[in-house]
Amino acid sequence: MAEGSRPTLVTVAEHARVSRQTVSNVLNSPEIVRPETRERVLRAIEELGYRPNVVARQLRTRRSSVLGLRMPPASDGISGQVLDRFLHALTDEAQRAGLRVMLFTAEDDDAEIREYQTLRATTGIDGFVLANTHAGDPRTQWLCDHDVPFVTVGRPWDDGGAPGASTSDDGLPHKVDDHPWVDIDGRAGTRAATQHLLDAGHRRVAFLGWPEGSGVGDDRLAGWLETLTDAGLAGDAVVQRTEDSVAMGAAAANRVLRDDDVTALVCVSDSIALGALAAARELAASRPDRAPVAITGFDDTPVARAVDLTSVAQPVADVAARAIELLRGQLDARPDSPDASTGVAQDRQVLIEPHLVVRATSRAAR
Amino acid sequence: MAEGSRPTLVTVAEHARVSRQTVSNVLNSPEIVRPETRERVLRAIEELGYRPNVVARQLRTRRSSVLGLRMPPASDGISGQVLDRFLHALTDEAQRAGLRVMLFTAEDDDAEIREYQTLRATTGIDGFVLANTHAGDPRTQWLCDHDVPFVTVGRPWDDGGAPGASTSDDGLPHKVDDHPWVDIDGRAGTRAATQHLLDAGHRRVAFLGWPEGSGVGDDRLAGWLETLTDAGLAGDAVVQRTEDSVAMGAAAANRVLRDDDVTALVCVSDSIALGALAAARELAASRPDRAPVAITGFDDTPVARAVDLTSVAQPVADVAARAIELLRGQLDARPDSPDASTGVAQDRQVLIEPHLVVRATSRAAR
Repeated sequence: MAEGSRPTLVTVAEHARVSRQTVSNVLNSPEIVRPETRERVLRAIEELGYRPNVVARQLRTRRSSVLGLRMPPASDGISGQVLDRFLHALTDEAQRAGLRVMLFTAEDDDAEIREYQTLRATTGIDGFVLANTHAGDPRTQWLCDHDVPFVTVGRPWDDGGAPGASTSDDGLPHKVDDHPWVDIDGRAGTRAATQHLLDAGHRRVAFLGWPEGSGVGDDRLAGWLETLTDAGLAGDAVVQRTEDSVAMGAAAANRVLRDDDVTALVCVSDSIALGALAAARELAASRPDRAPVAITGFDDTPVARAVDLTSVAQPVADVAARAIELLRGQLDARPDSPDASTGVAQDRQVLIEPHLVVRATSRAAR
Repeated sequence: MAEGSRPTLVTVAEHARVSRQTVSNVLNSPEIVRPETRERVLRAIEELGYRPNVVARQLRTRRSSVLGLRMPPASDGISGQVLDRFLHALTDEAQRAGLRVMLFTAEDDDAEIREYQTLRATTGIDGFVLANTHAGDPRTQWLCDHDVPFVTVGRPWDDGGAPGASTSDDGLPHKVDDHPWVDIDGRAGTRAATQHLLDAGHRRVAFLGWPEGSGVGDDRLAGWLETLTDAGLAGDAVVQRTEDSVAMGAAAANRVLRDDDVTALVCVSDSIALGALAAARELAASRPDRAPVAITGFDDTPVARAVDLTSVAQPVADVAARAIELLRGQLDARPDSPDASTGVAQDRQVLIEPHLVVRATSRAAR
């Protein structure tokens, strides 16, 4: 390259001994270029200091291929670990689909919406991944209103979150409730845990849940109650609701275990299960005559593995893969159909079944 | 705005009833604009569909204001939780400094370097934050060679990681070892833990560590050994090295505790401490005559809080803040001094002291 002149696509192609099209492919669809060639072109780009394509590409495609994700504040809860696995899986899947994940933080839903605006204006972000959806979520409403591609991890809970329940009387989908989402079927998870305990001979299986009004928590409770109802044991159903912490879990377990007939606890989270485990251990020490208590948690966190706690495992990688699929689909549909986000509903809403990992805490002899 | 014409900075300014400069500020230095004004301008941008500034700004500044961070694969370890807190803090600090964090994944160091190339070429990323540094790290070498701004969280371990030790015989700093980094002073952490146990009357304090050769692990071991040496107790020093897991921690503790004189264990991580705790509990049950064993962990994970484990807490938010400061400084120095990354060494290398959180596991009566 001549001294002083700026590198171009052509000089890069010459330097790497490939066609212009190949250089263009490396920049726009790297996944279709052979790794060796890709590396050679990237090396040439680096060596020549070629950098204008971001601009050119965004001008041409009006796309950044970047997805925004709000990084939730670190919770003190034990279940936070699931987030790490999800983030890694999401980044990995995005990368495979030619997309990148950009993080941001926000204090609350309104601040998150302000960040959507800023990010759209300053970084030209193409779409968003939302977590922690809840009934009446203003974020999904805003994104729908502004026709911004997005997917939520977690269903809209306005209608109880049943898939397909979001069609109105006239049979047309509501715009907001009908947005693309991926979620774990928590109800199926607690159903599996409860059935496992019934199969082991337990009859009085109590539930330690979160305070009423959390979509996720109420869904997990429903799975337990359904299973007891099916077994004709709903009359004995005992529920304690409590905040999500180990200490509160222990306190709730102590209250429930005053009833000697309760021999098993299905817990809404590993944090609460860990507390219940401590309570059950103390009870066993002070009341050797009492039947041992079986316990299941939810999330299959590293702590569950560490203390040998039976727990419901969330297939986080599947969730990430489906979320990226749903976003990629929206982005690809955009040039032809600018209103693609109000399309057909059914397969844009994905409920993934978790599975029970049985460990020592529910294997104790009856 | 006239039907059909593309919105411009001027139409946005008119629509929001502010000056052109204010619109420009909202896009380039949003932090200096009053929140109400900022929101009004962003609303106008959204309503008018104004989007060309990404391109314009990148052309003008040759900056993306985006930092790249490799999302490490989710570890099964309990300490992974620290990552969540770090990511949130880093994103938050970056945002305050007008920067964004973009994630990527890579299988190993070489793949990570390839992603640096791709990201620089396709997204115009301005700099990188690296974690998990190790001796002979090819990533920092590559970034230095290509004059790309970066900061590592974790010091270069080539020289044992002592700050200031990276100057060569001629007094000049090595280029690579001298890069900006922020780290937690692990040695100070285990020193505090060991001293705390000595102060409580323990004399034979063993160390459960990781296999030799890990910079972080060897540093934590050094803090324990120094403290025993200072107390004239190094002759009794007992070390067991093991992989980082709860089960391995329990096995290592069992080996060490065969010696009845060992009454305290300093553990290199909360995972290993959790295993040691289980081993100590079993020992107490089977050998009521034996002195109770005090235990400390490292990382102050939610699990440590849950099981009331004394642990060394890492000030993750401070680390994130200093890392962003160091990167921001490099980016700001760039236009004037293209070689800014080979500047003065001292205050570009920050060692932050952790603190010991004392809980029940080291408070047991001697």
